[in-house]
Amino acid sequence: MTMSELSDDPPFFDLVGQVRAMRRLKPDPVPLELIRKVLQAGVQASSGANAQPWRFIAVHSKERRDWFGERYKAAMYKGYGAFFNPDPADKSTAAGTARAAKHQADHMGETPVILLVAGKRDWPFKVPESERVGLAPPNYGSVYPCVQNILLACRSLQLGAALTTMHQLFEDELHAYFDIPDEYGVVVSIPIGYPKGRFGPVTRIPASEKTYFDTWGNDDASDWEL
Amino acid sequence: MTMSELSDDPPFFDLVGQVRAMRRLKPDPVPLELIRKVLQAGVQASSGANAQPWRFIAVHSKERRDWFGERYKAAMYKGYGAFFNPDPADKSTAAGTARAAKHQADHMGETPVILLVAGKRDWPFKVPESERVGLAPPNYGSVYPCVQNILLACRSLQLGAALTTMHQLFEDELHAYFDIPDEYGVVVSIPIGYPKGRFGPVTRIPASEKTYFDTWGNDDASDWEL
Repeated sequence: MTMSELSDDPPFFDLVGQVRAMRRLKPDPVPLELIRKVLQAGVQASSGANAQPWRFIAVHSKERRDWFGERYKAAMYKGYGAFFNPDPADKSTAAGTARAAKHQADHMGETPVILLVAGKRDWPFKVPESERVGLAPPNYGSVYPCVQNILLACRSLQLGAALTTMHQLFEDELHAYFDIPDEYGVVVSIPIGYPKGRFGPVTRIPASEKTYFDTWGNDDASDWEL
Repeated sequence: MTMSELSDDPPFFDLVGQVRAMRRLKPDPVPLELIRKVLQAGVQASSGANAQPWRFIAVHSKERRDWFGERYKAAMYKGYGAFFNPDPADKSTAAGTARAAKHQADHMGETPVILLVAGKRDWPFKVPESERVGLAPPNYGSVYPCVQNILLACRSLQLGAALTTMHQLFEDELHAYFDIPDEYGVVVSIPIGYPKGRFGPVTRIPASEKTYFDTWGNDDASDWEL
């Protein structure tokens, strides 16, 4: 087994280093059964007080995917259009990400499944009522663990996926079009399909360069005896 | 293999239904090597523009764990003290959660490792500058996938863990004590140790009851042909 190949339902530590954002997806349809398996993995996540405050809309009609895709593309071009055409000679990771993001923006509507993950707006916690601006946000800590389970499950099933949040730029319109009640916020939109390219291992800064012991800035763990 | 037993490094779909919040932990020390393995799984997560905006403080000195534990306990009693002593005859899930939360609050300082996961405050996106209250929040979508990887990795290694956010009630003090710069927010605090009880499968509402197709409220997927 090479690093870019994984069996179905691989061991977790093999899986976790292979779950990259896949932004180039084939238009080929995805079986409903796989989406159900992915979502069943999602709902296993823990949530505050076990509230399970998530709801999913699996968007698969062509008309509705196109509707979403047009607005997603406009939002991406508005936010990132300036970065979308790096010098063809530029082989940096940032340039590669920009090209993949442009591809995703241009082809979002062709993705066979666009999964909207909504969460209940129940996190007014830190901001006094008098100072709140607009609606309370969803409790991210109770929704994102479910989202990450979904991304891991997709990879386990050889499906490409990516976490996106640019729908925030047209969330009012999104709520109206999909008839989403105000008490829920759309936390992420996840395009899902079979990848055009191959999966591959991710490249990340090692944990050791991100870890401190007992206080910020201290990377000396020599007093940790085990 | 019964449902409550898992091999080390189990297949993902076996693992994901067994990752419950473990709130009763032994004080026995945890090898540093396991914490490093857990964090290395964490940093494999995707993040917006691959920014990897997380930082970890693994708190293991007794003095610092006690400091955290005292404040965590006070915050929990303030927020949830009224629910902490359900009728002993009450066998409901909510009563069980309340008892476990009380145990966690009372014993937080004895947990061998308290992991603070911080994220860069870079998410001012939705709120116009003139309307912002206080510091920008961390980009939760770029930190929580790492957090969920950490929780899954703990379970893979037979370590108990739970996602908690009550440190938000004393975050200013926390920043000062651990010397955390203002440009980072502490997203979660995760007590980690070997569990007192046994792991067991989680109980969740099935995904089918949380899933709509193409629009909110529609659970009919009969036009999905595959």
